[in-house]
Amino acid sequence: MTAMSKERDRSQDPYPSRLPEERWLPRQDKAVWSQWRPDAPLTAQQADQFDRDGFLILKDVFSEEEVEALKAESSSLRGGERDLMEGSVVTEPGSDEVRTIFKLPEQSSLFNRLARDRRVAGIASFLLGDDVYVHQSRLNYKPGFTGKEFYWHSDFETWHAEDGMPRMRAVSASLLLTDNDALNGPLMLMPGSHKHFIACAGETPDDNHKSSLKKQEVGVPSHEALTKLAATHGITPATGKAGTLVFFDCNTMHGSNGNITPFARSNAFFVFNALSNRLEAPFGARKARPDFLADRSEPKAIEIATGELA
Amino acid sequence: MTAMSKERDRSQDPYPSRLPEERWLPRQDKAVWSQWRPDAPLTAQQADQFDRDGFLILKDVFSEEEVEALKAESSSLRGGERDLMEGSVVTEPGSDEVRTIFKLPEQSSLFNRLARDRRVAGIASFLLGDDVYVHQSRLNYKPGFTGKEFYWHSDFETWHAEDGMPRMRAVSASLLLTDNDALNGPLMLMPGSHKHFIACAGETPDDNHKSSLKKQEVGVPSHEALTKLAATHGITPATGKAGTLVFFDCNTMHGSNGNITPFARSNAFFVFNALSNRLEAPFGARKARPDFLADRSEPKAIEIATGELA
Repeated sequence: MTAMSKERDRSQDPYPSRLPEERWLPRQDKAVWSQWRPDAPLTAQQADQFDRDGFLILKDVFSEEEVEALKAESSSLRGGERDLMEGSVVTEPGSDEVRTIFKLPEQSSLFNRLARDRRVAGIASFLLGDDVYVHQSRLNYKPGFTGKEFYWHSDFETWHAEDGMPRMRAVSASLLLTDNDALNGPLMLMPGSHKHFIACAGETPDDNHKSSLKKQEVGVPSHEALTKLAATHGITPATGKAGTLVFFDCNTMHGSNGNITPFARSNAFFVFNALSNRLEAPFGARKARPDFLADRSEPKAIEIATGELA
Repeated sequence: MTAMSKERDRSQDPYPSRLPEERWLPRQDKAVWSQWRPDAPLTAQQADQFDRDGFLILKDVFSEEEVEALKAESSSLRGGERDLMEGSVVTEPGSDEVRTIFKLPEQSSLFNRLARDRRVAGIASFLLGDDVYVHQSRLNYKPGFTGKEFYWHSDFETWHAEDGMPRMRAVSASLLLTDNDALNGPLMLMPGSHKHFIACAGETPDDNHKSSLKKQEVGVPSHEALTKLAATHGITPATGKAGTLVFFDCNTMHGSNGNITPFARSNAFFVFNALSNRLEAPFGARKARPDFLADRSEPKAIEIATGELA
């Protein structure tokens, strides 16, 4: 079966979505796939916390010099001084300001090194209990004053339905490149929400990603489902200084508010997928999304690097 | 000079605005007009805090029963069960959901009693060192999921330019009717910003209020001014449980973010003006705004009531 094949038989799918009715299904996969060992890149308590909440916020992981170097690299990438790959740049609705740059390790040796770091890919590999590769990467920038909201969603719902990711065995790592507090539109996560799969109502339109990157309208849970999730699990903002590293499970419900404060928000974002979880044909769409959103090439395990970034 | 007269001579105006260029001017008026006395409705420390920050957040001022009664009254007013005054209701852009009901004391005996309470009008009268009357009142409701942002502004800038309020001698009281945290689009205030008058650039269009109540575009400071204010003064969210009472000076810079959380936000809002500060002709517009936004009738001092609300 290839990426371009017709929609597949859904009766065998543990996570069917984009159907006429919304449904709650139990998670069929672990969140932490490794047994903890003393040489793990997380403490046992951190691993338990990730298992329970579906995310983990790590402070002071990188040195001040490392953070400064990453911030400078980010400015340079956004500043228009580099030739960037065609189709890898998304602008803010209604302006030319760069909102997202995809394919980060392919376009920056420093971000390439960051992605391979033991503190990033090493933790991802531990959590997923497998070798990992980068499924998607991007540099996000949300300006002050006019930053738009990004509505609640589970990434896995989209990656499964539109990209053909078989199981919940992927994790996102977001490195904050600006100070984030609760008021400047931070990532908001619902702790424990990763244990429910909310199969969303509605068929996927062709080329859905062309609008969903700016404003997601298909693959989002109902107000009722979100109210129930938030009432049960609450909402936690991923706040911290530049350099804070946030890991969150592929199925953790998350979103972010708009931002009228003068304080912009930026992060470098890497999705790690388990090598054993490589993409198949989409489970809920006729056509797979482009390569910059979901790497469909033969996956190669990341070789994990240790020591200072640069 | 009447409300319908031509624009007045601006050379005598201590707070000229809506001019070709933005300007920073020093505040010419006090923020706390009374000497503190032991029988004041605020502690000396609270009065000092208001003077310094331009706002004050008071918790546990009302009993649980009082808060429940006010919440029930609010639901009833918003629920469509009452005949409301023509023009007093504003709906959410793109829906019929009630966002604002003006003229609150005129339409509800419980909110009338609240406005006159020593804990509300009594504090306002102490801060302003004068008898007070209600310049404007409203019930605000910002829904969950789709609540829109309200951009930074000083109320006084508008009340002076468009309503003809002569001096900075007015204070707003906002009673939270829902729990507010930093994530559901709370009121955000810049502490200390009330000491600067930012004269805004741009002429007032006729009937500006028809669009400015939904989205303010004239009478707002530049990105540069807001960046400088926020860097100097910071930003504080007015958070607290339902029943929390927030006082803020007429010139404190404030705004609120949108809200994608399921948690709606609601408050009852009263602007108290000093009796000696009654409206004149607008200082920066050709025509005064309608009565529900700025009471232009002969002001009568509120008689302050003590004891339980109901």
